Amino acid sequence: MIVRLPNTFVFAQLSSVRLLSAFSRSVCYFHPVPTAVHLQSGRSFITTTSRNKAVRINSSKPATTAMSLPTIDRDTLDGVLKRRFFFAPGFDIYGGVSGLYDYGPPGCALQANIVDVWRKHFVLEEDMLEVDCTMLTPYEVLKTSGHVDKFADWMCRDPATGEIFRVDHLVEEVLESRLKGDKEARGETAEPSAGAEEKKRKKKVKEIKAVKLDDAVVTEYEEVLAKIDGYSGPELGELMKKYIIVNPATGGPLSEPLEFNLMFETAIGPSGQLKGYLRPETAQGQFLNFNKLLESNNTKMPFASASIGKSFRNEISPRSGLLRVREFLMAEIEHFVDPLDKSHPRFSEVADTKLRLLSKDTQQDGRTEVEETTIGEAVKAGLVDNETLGYFLARIYKFLIKIGVDHNRLRFRQHMRNEMAHYAADCWDAELHTSYGWVECVGCADRSAYDLTVHSNRTNEKLVVRQTLAEPLTVEAFEVELDKKKFGPKFKKDGKKIEQFLTSRTQCELEDLAKELSEKLKISVDVEGVEDAVEIEKDIISIEKKTRLEHIREYTPNVIEPSFGIGRILYSLIEHNFWIRPESDQRAVLSFPAVIAPTKVLLVPLSNNEVFDPLINELSRLLRRGGIPAKIDDSSATIGRRYARNDELGTPFGVTVDFQSVQDRTVTLRERDSTKQVRGTVEEIIAAVQAMVGQDAVSWEEGTKGLASFDAGSE
Amino acid sequence: MIVRLPNTFVFAQLSSVRLLSAFSRSVCYFHPVPTAVHLQSGRSFITTTSRNKAVRINSSKPATTAMSLPTIDRDTLDGVLKRRFFFAPGFDIYGGVSGLYDYGPPGCALQANIVDVWRKHFVLEEDMLEVDCTMLTPYEVLKTSGHVDKFADWMCRDPATGEIFRVDHLVEEVLESRLKGDKEARGETAEPSAGAEEKKRKKKVKEIKAVKLDDAVVTEYEEVLAKIDGYSGPELGELMKKYIIVNPATGGPLSEPLEFNLMFETAIGPSGQLKGYLRPETAQGQFLNFNKLLESNNTKMPFASASIGKSFRNEISPRSGLLRVREFLMAEIEHFVDPLDKSHPRFSEVADTKLRLLSKDTQQDGRTEVEETTIGEAVKAGLVDNETLGYFLARIYKFLIKIGVDHNRLRFRQHMRNEMAHYAADCWDAELHTSYGWVECVGCADRSAYDLTVHSNRTNEKLVVRQTLAEPLTVEAFEVELDKKKFGPKFKKDGKKIEQFLTSRTQCELEDLAKELSEKLKISVDVEGVEDAVEIEKDIISIEKKTRLEHIREYTPNVIEPSFGIGRILYSLIEHNFWIRPESDQRAVLSFPAVIAPTKVLLVPLSNNEVFDPLINELSRLLRRGGIPAKIDDSSATIGRRYARNDELGTPFGVTVDFQSVQDRTVTLRERDSTKQVRGTVEEIIAAVQAMVGQDAVSWEEGTKGLASFDAGSE
Repeated sequence: MIVRLPNTFVFAQLSSVRLLSAFSRSVCYFHPVPTAVHLQSGRSFITTTSRNKAVRINSSKPATTAMSLPTIDRDTLDGVLKRRFFFAPGFDIYGGVSGLYDYGPPGCALQANIVDVWRKHFVLEEDMLEVDCTMLTPYEVLKTSGHVDKFADWMCRDPATGEIFRVDHLVEEVLESRLKGDKEARGETAEPSAGAEEKKRKKKVKEIKAVKLDDAVVTEYEEVLAKIDGYSGPELGELMKKYIIVNPATGGPLSEPLEFNLMFETAIGPSGQLKGYLRPETAQGQFLNFNKLLESNNTKMPFASASIGKSFRNEISPRSGLLRVREFLMAEIEHFVDPLDKSHPRFSEVADTKLRLLSKDTQQDGRTEVEETTIGEAVKAGLVDNETLGYFLARIYKFLIKIGVDHNRLRFRQHMRNEMAHYAADCWDAELHTSYGWVECVGCADRSAYDLTVHSNRTNEKLVVRQTLAEPLTVEAFEVELDKKKFGPKFKKDGKKIEQFLTSRTQCELEDLAKELSEKLKISVDVEGVEDAVEIEKDIISIEKKTRLEHIREYTPNVIEPSFGIGRILYSLIEHNFWIRPESDQRAVLSFPAVIAPTKVLLVPLSNNEVFDPLINELSRLLRRGGIPAKIDDSSATIGRRYARNDELGTPFGVTVDFQSVQDRTVTLRERDSTKQVRGTVEEIIAAVQAMVGQDAVSWEEGTKGLASFDAGSE
Repeated sequence: MIVRLPNTFVFAQLSSVRLLSAFSRSVCYFHPVPTAVHLQSGRSFITTTSRNKAVRINSSKPATTAMSLPTIDRDTLDGVLKRRFFFAPGFDIYGGVSGLYDYGPPGCALQANIVDVWRKHFVLEEDMLEVDCTMLTPYEVLKTSGHVDKFADWMCRDPATGEIFRVDHLVEEVLESRLKGDKEARGETAEPSAGAEEKKRKKKVKEIKAVKLDDAVVTEYEEVLAKIDGYSGPELGELMKKYIIVNPATGGPLSEPLEFNLMFETAIGPSGQLKGYLRPETAQGQFLNFNKLLESNNTKMPFASASIGKSFRNEISPRSGLLRVREFLMAEIEHFVDPLDKSHPRFSEVADTKLRLLSKDTQQDGRTEVEETTIGEAVKAGLVDNETLGYFLARIYKFLIKIGVDHNRLRFRQHMRNEMAHYAADCWDAELHTSYGWVECVGCADRSAYDLTVHSNRTNEKLVVRQTLAEPLTVEAFEVELDKKKFGPKFKKDGKKIEQFLTSRTQCELEDLAKELSEKLKISVDVEGVEDAVEIEKDIISIEKKTRLEHIREYTPNVIEPSFGIGRILYSLIEHNFWIRPESDQRAVLSFPAVIAPTKVLLVPLSNNEVFDPLINELSRLLRRGGIPAKIDDSSATIGRRYARNDELGTPFGVTVDFQSVQDRTVTLRERDSTKQVRGTVEEIIAAVQAMVGQDAVSWEEGTKGLASFDAGSE
């Protein structure tokens, strides 16, 4: 895959002057680092191929952390997700469209609950300004942000069959399959079984032939695979030639790699003239509304905006279920901060949070061990660039843990210098481990002043903060003065262009011009739109360093951007909470925390005898009034089977109404994971449930304190 | 505007046989009604031009109901909405794109709160199955639903300037402007002033010339305007010729009307071969997943699915702010019901709800008076077709009142026979009155089995319910039997096609064939894909009426579809809750109910003296813990001005911390609308606020019972 935007490659196209003038002091300039292991841009986290890296890391370099992680049976899980309609391929009765998924009721509720926790955890807690901007985005906006030119992957085409391949994936799959053939020929064991989708995909690659390779070739293949994310299109083309990579199904030759822009294009309005795209991220709308947001915040800094909404990427070959799709839900925060002060007032509240960090230095050494350390220590040591970035890493961690992510399957991986945009100060991804490998689920980057600056330059709309200084500041700067009486008549209609040219010079350029003026008693400049070189004599112009008092400081804020891929989080969460009851491998359980479980309570009458109806309906009404989603299962299946069905749905609590209930209004309450049961009156049980769901849920032990335990026998 | 899909026009293209076989018993067949006053399809409620109708009704026929409605100063309101960033044109620093709006923090919170109430009121209360389907939709799906062929408006082009006009809007504006010129020439008064946007738009129409028209021409123009929604494209073309309608700005000639499909088109995947659209509604995803949803509901009927999400329509000339936009939030319910039993188990709970109904008969008489009646009476009298439809009308009413709609500015308008799809049993729109006229905000249609049937026919996937009958049913039906030994050798390769043809005949067709067979001792049929006419002799085929016992009843459910345009509701709600304090016309107030107010509490320290900080922060923390969104305003503005600012944001409660508060922990609580104040301890005030926000909020009087009233003097 190629590096996406905004990234270092874009800036190679800009002049160095532009570079120096466009960015503020805190920017780290571009230092190329030769060995690219994880070449990815900060902005593109949803499409980058963590899966590949992880699979590669796990297979070729079995790092200790990866090996000790639990594995799941993906086929069984896929069965549960399909049977319970968590999600399913969209338009499947029409044959389906790859990369498009519909969420069924439990998936939709799970997603809504994750979003709800997100909103309370970030927007409400931090008083962020949430906005909802359109997905349709005109060409000019995404041209300026850089997406039109650089938001692309490399593909190649089979001219005979019309098939299209994503080049990096193709090279990877072919080399992996040859290595596997080599292993087979050497009599070594095969890898553990993959999920159904992966099996299907691998079928496309020609039957693995047990062909032994030279040891040197094996080493070469492994090196290529280790760097697969770092190759440019032409380099991938070279690899295809060198290793004779053809259409695996037919053996036919393939075209050279071509760039394919990942944005969906459309035309806005009836003329067909206004080109637009579906947004590839929700960030741009927040940047464009910066002035209105600052105003909404009574011009106080720092502040954050937030947005939750769908984004779109036209993947060449979508795969890995929900992990690489064409339409997905994102939640993004843009925290605007003074570039001179990135401290955070609430940092002390999170300083003791322990995170599992994989630093860039560790990766540079070719290792993947994480270091568990407090965020306070990490910021103090300079490992994490600043307090605000550190604060958000800790908040992201707390959010993920709250919704049920496994601490041991969560790491924060720092971007290496070469996978980060040159203007970024620091960038960390929260990665979750799944059966597909480590998956980037949240990106958290310090994007400096890049975004506001490019949009401001393009539109001539100032996107800045004006800060009244407590004490006026003495500023020394070169200033241009023109003798208008002489300047006007001399340059006539070109006057305005020349004046604009002079006033838009950088301090560095003005210093040079001042020197030229004092040496040659005139300056000579090329002005766009003016045919001849412009010469201005010393009697018309003065360029001198002047000292003035400034009462207002004007600056472009920096942006810290935590960006969440909700679908990826949702899927990883499902894997982290999936297990099989050891007593029976038929009984799968999804142990979601109550706060995100799609349904909180299952109401189970002992049988479909209508004597139970009044109490069941009363329970249902009471729970609804308390805002607790509950479902009644009055089917004729056994109670055990009904609970099993709801274990698969992740419903944390079950309430059974039996004949005794009808007599004395006592019911039993069952906990999903332990299958423990207690008994109490309707009111006691409702109160216990109320205490155990929601944001500040108490534990089962605390919630059911004082209630008699109940033995229902084996389920 | 042309009639949109699915509607009567589509079915004119289908054979009558197909019509008869495709739909179930409860369908009302197509009866053309000549005079079309409100020709609109059930499916297209977001784009239809209620505004025009209403403006027309109000100006030419000042009906009593319309005249007694409050009017608002739209310019003042627009100022508030812009200043407080409720919403704003998208991409405005790039010059904007018409029909695309961004919601700022208060608008976004208002929208989220409306959606939250919607979800609790409908999804949770009724145990609906919520799904989240993709916006990207492949061509085939929307071809089948009919949108590809018929989801269009008529436009015309100025070949000289390239300008594009929506034809019905153009004809309407030109004729209205001529009538206005006539009025001016006759010395009659002008209309009350319109909002800024409308003024700007009207400028495009050439300066109104005070030219007197013949009385006959005035009558003709008024008749055309009354029927403007009912003209086809060619008819609009005739009108343009007859009344010499040209480009109002230049006087240049215009093209014939052309059809313009309102869907945004894009290509899915890298090949560019898979054509797709952005969905124009959220309904299709629910229909396509019918089988999975039925399964999720343990195959129990009836049940409803629901979906909340963005939809897209590429309007030719977007206008009227949020009322006609290109990207909008919808909430749709598909309630699947047995066509033979449309009673509703909870109908008795709503039967006494009084609704303001505008029946089709009243409209047919050219009148607009509403009749206020209980939904129980309306269903009993047959005015509303069935209980389930009536139940949803009442539930829609309760939802709209809960979020703050004015009962007197809400009416339910029944579709007339000719504006409804032929298969629909009945259809009602909830219309809200605004300064733009009556606006369709919710549609509620009984769509019969149309949607499931067309998708099932196209995909050969059965979308049906199988009901085990309590007692087996004796069914008489014509059945075809073939003597396979003779049939196969005779028709060879055509055999399969002929057999398929015979088995897919309707009962009506089989009856005819049986008659033919008994009379001529053979049948002769044309089979698609078989060259010659097919003759089958009596020795090969038998077609006889047979009696059999059925244990399973298989049926395609009917669909009752309440469909909500959230943006339109949100805007109308703002108008319904907007007023100016009589004591000062500077002070605008938005009196949102607490449950949907963007912020619930404003925290106001008396001054920015830091002695107030601890108590303000404590209040903020306590409210946050209670899930109550609050904002602190510690700016240096006067308390009165700070409250005024928040009246514009619709914040229902304000808490002031003063020097006494620091001593004794008592604070004042202010109510937005009455500006009444009470005083109590921090705990008492928090408890009062908690009781007055949320779904089951109590009144100010009840919430503050027992607290001392407080006189803060004039604000």
